[in-house]
Amino acid sequence: MDFPSKVIEDGVNELSRLPGIGKKTALRLALHILRGSEAQAENLCQALIAMRKEVRFCKTCGNISAHDECKICTSHRRDGGIICVVEDCKDVIAIENTGQYTGKYHVLNGVIHPMQGIGPGELNIDKLIHRVEQGGVREIIIALPTSMEGEMTAFYIAKRLKAHELKISSIARGIPVGSDLEFTDEITLARSLMHRTNFSTEDKTAL
Amino acid sequence: MDFPSKVIEDGVNELSRLPGIGKKTALRLALHILRGSEAQAENLCQALIAMRKEVRFCKTCGNISAHDECKICTSHRRDGGIICVVEDCKDVIAIENTGQYTGKYHVLNGVIHPMQGIGPGELNIDKLIHRVEQGGVREIIIALPTSMEGEMTAFYIAKRLKAHELKISSIARGIPVGSDLEFTDEITLARSLMHRTNFSTEDKTAL
Repeated sequence: MDFPSKVIEDGVNELSRLPGIGKKTALRLALHILRGSEAQAENLCQALIAMRKEVRFCKTCGNISAHDECKICTSHRRDGGIICVVEDCKDVIAIENTGQYTGKYHVLNGVIHPMQGIGPGELNIDKLIHRVEQGGVREIIIALPTSMEGEMTAFYIAKRLKAHELKISSIARGIPVGSDLEFTDEITLARSLMHRTNFSTEDKTAL
Repeated sequence: MDFPSKVIEDGVNELSRLPGIGKKTALRLALHILRGSEAQAENLCQALIAMRKEVRFCKTCGNISAHDECKICTSHRRDGGIICVVEDCKDVIAIENTGQYTGKYHVLNGVIHPMQGIGPGELNIDKLIHRVEQGGVREIIIALPTSMEGEMTAFYIAKRLKAHELKISSIARGIPVGSDLEFTDEITLARSLMHRTNFSTEDKTAL
């Protein structure tokens, strides 16, 4: 692409470093910023710089946090006996939005991916083992992606926690609520049959 | 969405103001910035601020430019007798990338869109008429989108230029090079038949 000026090229190049933003999308974003006022561009940049400077990662669970330890880890209303293991902070927000989970979290910041050179050492796994070793944990809920890498990571964590007396569970895989059977892929359908649950006429609200 | 801290919420809100970026994508971008170094975040913001401050719009054609008048408008090697009318600066870059066009441009900065309250007065049309009135223009090539709004704008421009003696043409609509007939939509196929060109055994390189 040939740009009319060097500063636009720099702006587009910086924007296209963001994940999922190619050169064409970056140019679209750049043109939007150019058409807006200078104040709008400054607001965007100030918000990003403030975010990068002030946000830290929780020393216990690895989630994004405003302080050394995040709100969930320091909360006395959350059950520290249950830890939900997730890939990244987006998953914490997604589970929190359900309003159904009252335990704590552990954010791995990725999954084991040998092809990309990500081994267990690069992930936040040792701290999880340390949390379990300190006692008080009854259950680990593994909520990692169903990719090969996610399952490998789940398997690795389960193996390292084998010596400890605790329940290790995995979130249910099945047909999404409101979805039709005929449009569900075979693997999901097979899993939903395999892990069928007892039909209950009572309302299950507690986790 | 419930965010773990106010600064993240601000950052995500600012990012989601960009076109085509929803809350979820904004969160993904924010997490990417958080995982990167502080220097990376600053580079991004410095490039955007510099771009917004230094880039101007050409006083003749409306294209983005480093100076009062853009490189294309001031170039003596470009044919000022042909003006290609486009919707925005992205289209100029796209046509320039073909390396086939030697005329000049006129960027409208949008198309007429009554539903969005965009009339001819909001667009860079008066300056185009002014350029034609100054003389020396032999041909106007209209290269606007094929949407209803694009065609309406083309029609409006053609009508306003009716009094002047010049050729008004439109870029060819037809089947993209390398594309199969069977996968082409009916309207494009019908147009490509209607505007069929004489088959030539000579290579056409000049515009």
